[in-house]
Amino acid sequence: MKKLKLLTLVALLIALPSLALAEEEAVSEMTYILNTFSFLISGVLVMWMAAGFAMLEAGLVRSKNVATICLKNIALFGVAGILFYLIGYNLMYMNVDGGFMGSFAVWGADDAAALAGDYSAGYSAGSDWFFQMVFCGAACSVVSGCVAERIKLWSFLLFCVVLTGIIYPIQGSWGWGGGWLSAMGFSDYAGSTLVHSCGGWAALTGAIILGARKGKYSSDGRVNPIPGSNIPMATIGTFILWMGWFGFNGGSALALGVASSAIEQGAVYINTNLAACGGMIAAMIAVQIMYKKTDVTMALNGALAGLVSITAGPAAPSPGAAILIGAVGGVLVVLAVPFFDKLKIDDVVGALSVHLVCGIWGTLAVPFCDDGTSFLTQLIGVVSIGAFVVVTSSIVWLAIKFTIGVRCDEEDEYRGLDIAEIGVEAYPDFQAVTNKR
Amino acid sequence: MKKLKLLTLVALLIALPSLALAEEEAVSEMTYILNTFSFLISGVLVMWMAAGFAMLEAGLVRSKNVATICLKNIALFGVAGILFYLIGYNLMYMNVDGGFMGSFAVWGADDAAALAGDYSAGYSAGSDWFFQMVFCGAACSVVSGCVAERIKLWSFLLFCVVLTGIIYPIQGSWGWGGGWLSAMGFSDYAGSTLVHSCGGWAALTGAIILGARKGKYSSDGRVNPIPGSNIPMATIGTFILWMGWFGFNGGSALALGVASSAIEQGAVYINTNLAACGGMIAAMIAVQIMYKKTDVTMALNGALAGLVSITAGPAAPSPGAAILIGAVGGVLVVLAVPFFDKLKIDDVVGALSVHLVCGIWGTLAVPFCDDGTSFLTQLIGVVSIGAFVVVTSSIVWLAIKFTIGVRCDEEDEYRGLDIAEIGVEAYPDFQAVTNKR
Amino acid sequence: MKKLKLLTLVALLIALPSLALAEEEAVSEMTYILNTFSFLISGVLVMWMAAGFAMLEAGLVRSKNVATICLKNIALFGVAGILFYLIGYNLMYMNVDGGFMGSFAVWGADDAAALAGDYSAGYSAGSDWFFQMVFCGAACSVVSGCVAERIKLWSFLLFCVVLTGIIYPIQGSWGWGGGWLSAMGFSDYAGSTLVHSCGGWAALTGAIILGARKGKYSSDGRVNPIPGSNIPMATIGTFILWMGWFGFNGGSALALGVASSAIEQGAVYINTNLAACGGMIAAMIAVQIMYKKTDVTMALNGALAGLVSITAGPAAPSPGAAILIGAVGGVLVVLAVPFFDKLKIDDVVGALSVHLVCGIWGTLAVPFCDDGTSFLTQLIGVVSIGAFVVVTSSIVWLAIKFTIGVRCDEEDEYRGLDIAEIGVEAYPDFQAVTNKR
Repeated sequence: MKKLKLLTLVALLIALPSLALAEEEAVSEMTYILNTFSFLISGVLVMWMAAGFAMLEAGLVRSKNVATICLKNIALFGVAGILFYLIGYNLMYMNVDGGFMGSFAVWGADDAAALAGDYSAGYSAGSDWFFQMVFCGAACSVVSGCVAERIKLWSFLLFCVVLTGIIYPIQGSWGWGGGWLSAMGFSDYAGSTLVHSCGGWAALTGAIILGARKGKYSSDGRVNPIPGSNIPMATIGTFILWMGWFGFNGGSALALGVASSAIEQGAVYINTNLAACGGMIAAMIAVQIMYKKTDVTMALNGALAGLVSITAGPAAPSPGAAILIGAVGGVLVVLAVPFFDKLKIDDVVGALSVHLVCGIWGTLAVPFCDDGTSFLTQLIGVVSIGAFVVVTSSIVWLAIKFTIGVRCDEEDEYRGLDIAEIGVEAYPDFQAVTNKR
Repeated sequence: MKKLKLLTLVALLIALPSLALAEEEAVSEMTYILNTFSFLISGVLVMWMAAGFAMLEAGLVRSKNVATICLKNIALFGVAGILFYLIGYNLMYMNVDGGFMGSFAVWGADDAAALAGDYSAGYSAGSDWFFQMVFCGAACSVVSGCVAERIKLWSFLLFCVVLTGIIYPIQGSWGWGGGWLSAMGFSDYAGSTLVHSCGGWAALTGAIILGARKGKYSSDGRVNPIPGSNIPMATIGTFILWMGWFGFNGGSALALGVASSAIEQGAVYINTNLAACGGMIAAMIAVQIMYKKTDVTMALNGALAGLVSITAGPAAPSPGAAILIGAVGGVLVVLAVPFFDKLKIDDVVGALSVHLVCGIWGTLAVPFCDDGTSFLTQLIGVVSIGAFVVVTSSIVWLAIKFTIGVRCDEEDEYRGLDIAEIGVEAYPDFQAVTNKR
Repeated sequence: MKKLKLLTLVALLIALPSLALAEEEAVSEMTYILNTFSFLISGVLVMWMAAGFAMLEAGLVRSKNVATICLKNIALFGVAGILFYLIGYNLMYMNVDGGFMGSFAVWGADDAAALAGDYSAGYSAGSDWFFQMVFCGAACSVVSGCVAERIKLWSFLLFCVVLTGIIYPIQGSWGWGGGWLSAMGFSDYAGSTLVHSCGGWAALTGAIILGARKGKYSSDGRVNPIPGSNIPMATIGTFILWMGWFGFNGGSALALGVASSAIEQGAVYINTNLAACGGMIAAMIAVQIMYKKTDVTMALNGALAGLVSITAGPAAPSPGAAILIGAVGGVLVVLAVPFFDKLKIDDVVGALSVHLVCGIWGTLAVPFCDDGTSFLTQLIGVVSIGAFVVVTSSIVWLAIKFTIGVRCDEEDEYRGLDIAEIGVEAYPDFQAVTNKR
């Protein structure tokens, strides 16, 4: 009897810690699964943004260039996937260690530990790669709209190869790969700077080196509006981007498997949505005041401006502050569009006003709501990444210009890139009002 | 030895309950996360419905009003977000206590308890707000299509301010905020009445006060069909709504973190889908029988009719019953469209037939499959909410009419609102067949 | 004292196993919920592919047939839902037992065990039904594009009834229902054969029995290109399919609730995406080399080719292998399109090249990356399913042809099915270039 009692006690003593351990392991497995699933679902939403950019741009270019802009948008997403696998991911994340870039190495998943029951990685390697890759694609999407209607297809895609394989990952490593900017305390939650203004700077250098579309700026200084050919297309593009942005910002919590992360994602969703609302309504009101009439494309760009503006810090602000941050972005867009026109920088869809200007604004606005950040550090991040992207992009654009050429010839631009470059018209069944524009 | 044994026993006695407690806490944290995530993902799907309404309506109005309807749809979603934050949520949910409305107070999240490890709230405050807000937007989207092609932009948005800030939340509090109707046992799972017919009643009063579009009804009593300008746009709009409805109804289980909720969501998904199938096929067959030819817009509206019809009670019916409930909705739409035309109530996209008529039908059909509900209580809900929305909406529409005006002047309506109101054409590159329609 | 100690020990002995049991049950409940949720969310993404097919086809047919193809696409999804409920599911999954088909019985959910706390089913019955049903819809969607622009609406839908109720489920039972092919070791992860080439074979027989569109092939042997009417529509369709494919392939892991499944889903997402990238870029390069100009519709079909190709085995390949498998698919499409034209098989949207050819390629490519499969067994699966679908589809197509008729009369085809069949034009406001095509 006594022996039995002793044995029982020993058994209990062994069972209890192992039970505790099993419980802990079960919890960390669930956390691991939820973090992984958050990356995958959020990543699908961000992937979907590539369609949003495609539709927005297809709606805002002239009908003679629509098929080409569709092709560019889907092709750049293909390029981004392959290049981010071959070079980008590890250049952005492997062995950055406070420095200026990672390693040149093809990416490969290593989930052996998790498969053996050690869930300390927090999420599957593949889900992380997928989530980071779609961000790379988004940065590239910013460029296509700005340089539309005059750039050669393959030249554009060649630029995308360098942007997604080299430029984006290197500057990304500074902030998200544990590089020197992050060591300084630079804060960019989902990429106002690292994604949107990165793409914006690349687009800006491209637009300058390409020059404006024929007919956009008259020799007497007049700016000739070139309206988009399909407003509902642009509208669904904006809705898609708005929808995808919940994954873009929400997924950037980088976790879901503990309650605090889930709460954080909830706050991010709200602020993302309200910043878009604020940006759109503010842009509509600003346009109404300035031009006595409101404008649908400005409302769309205002919503996107709000979204870009909140992206650097969507978790910290109160809902009211998020509306304000977005609203400032919305007004900035209304002011920036004529500003770039005054500089004769021809930005077909307003990408510079939305992604570059509001990307900067959003990054600099982070310290208003997040005490752990400093305005100076944010400014250093904005300036250094701007300088890096401008310099490297310029080199690439110029190298392409002086080798295979970057701009279509005038006759092709006049006829439209659809016929000239790809031999497929976007709307062959409909009579165009005129081809003269 | 004996002392050791005693000590061990005491240690075990202490460890065991704390282990049980830790396990319970871990489970409730996971439940909390899953409930929260269900709100967020379902909410994204419902947000996406705003795009669905935009595309459906952009496809069903004439090309000269397309840019304006796009603007109205995205702008109303912006208005809904801001107003539901400033007023709506707390007016719908705070301190209703069996009464007629909540409190006037700006919404704020309080997740302190959950962050401290007490997960009894069940989900994060922000995820709940987000999910409720997108429903408010959906109610508002119902209105825009009905009153399209003749209403002034800012007048419409002003109405949206009152609808999303005041009218929708007050009637919503009766059912979902714990108000008098819910105390009576009124059952409306995802809002056949509280969302769809609420929007429908507001649209009805608007359509009556606005009057019909010029040319819709001839003086000799003839009804002149005014076909939509872009059927694939209307089709993708319908698909978007169908897709979003899984979040609309599925998320309305209000939980995912226990198995019974997950099972319930599965049943809701099936019934939602089958009701849409039933509504569409029934509408197609009814149209074929009545007019000897079927019609794509009736098929689209039939699918939406099925979706609205099942919304009041998507969890209880068997799949076969769901098909039937949807099919009745599909037939109702086919009958309701000419009925409203006979009354000379000009409903541009069929929103009254879909959302108002089927919203009522769906609410009254709940007791067929759910023993816990009564037909009389359902009827009281339908009538009281109808009366409230009709009266309050009428006041608002009339107040707008006699101040800033609600209807565009005849010349603007003739030219199209795109040129008159926002100065942007939807399809400027394409030759219109005629502007005379 | 001694008695107390004994009692305590006994209490502990009882408490400990029950605690372990409670923990195990909690874990299996979470696993059950996550598996269920994965089915539901993935299922929504696959449902969304129905919209992708609709838009792709609406963009690739002529404007005079656009409203009809929209109607066919949404109607077939309605048919699929109802038929898979009435007949399909149980014919595919109930009591197949290594045989050739399941049982004829209306589907019903049975979640009693899970509601009583036994989670061994792994997921809710309804979530599984929903996920399987949307696959049935996808197989049917493959057909509509191939036989577009000349088939009668109701005849097409009648074929869909048989395809989704009988043909698809029977061949599906061989692979996924535990039938004879799966017993042999045939491996088709998400349906390169069971969904895509099944639909492809049915489309092939339909296209042959229908004959080519008037004017497609001249009597002198020339092939006359008939360009699609709306390229951005086709582009968003492709993006939707790409997006939906993450649910199609990812959800086919059939689980999420254990870490290994989550890891597997991550790998599937990556490979799915990279195969699409590879297929698109390879198709673009191949077209550029062969025709000195690239082409947007070939890029779109190249992406889809990559997606179909990886679908039979998206979990096993390395990312690099996935790119290659997709790239081969992309090249195959570029070669297959002129091949079918040489045979005068008129495939309006390239569905045979994408779904049939690449479905076969993807199935045969599985053994390259998965040692557990054999090339011979894969071939047996491809051939036997091809033979079954060709024979049964031919019978159904011919039965329809010789009863209610399958092809529109020449005058209707000339005017366009929109006016002839449904009396609704897709774009009534725009002047068509010509109706002569």
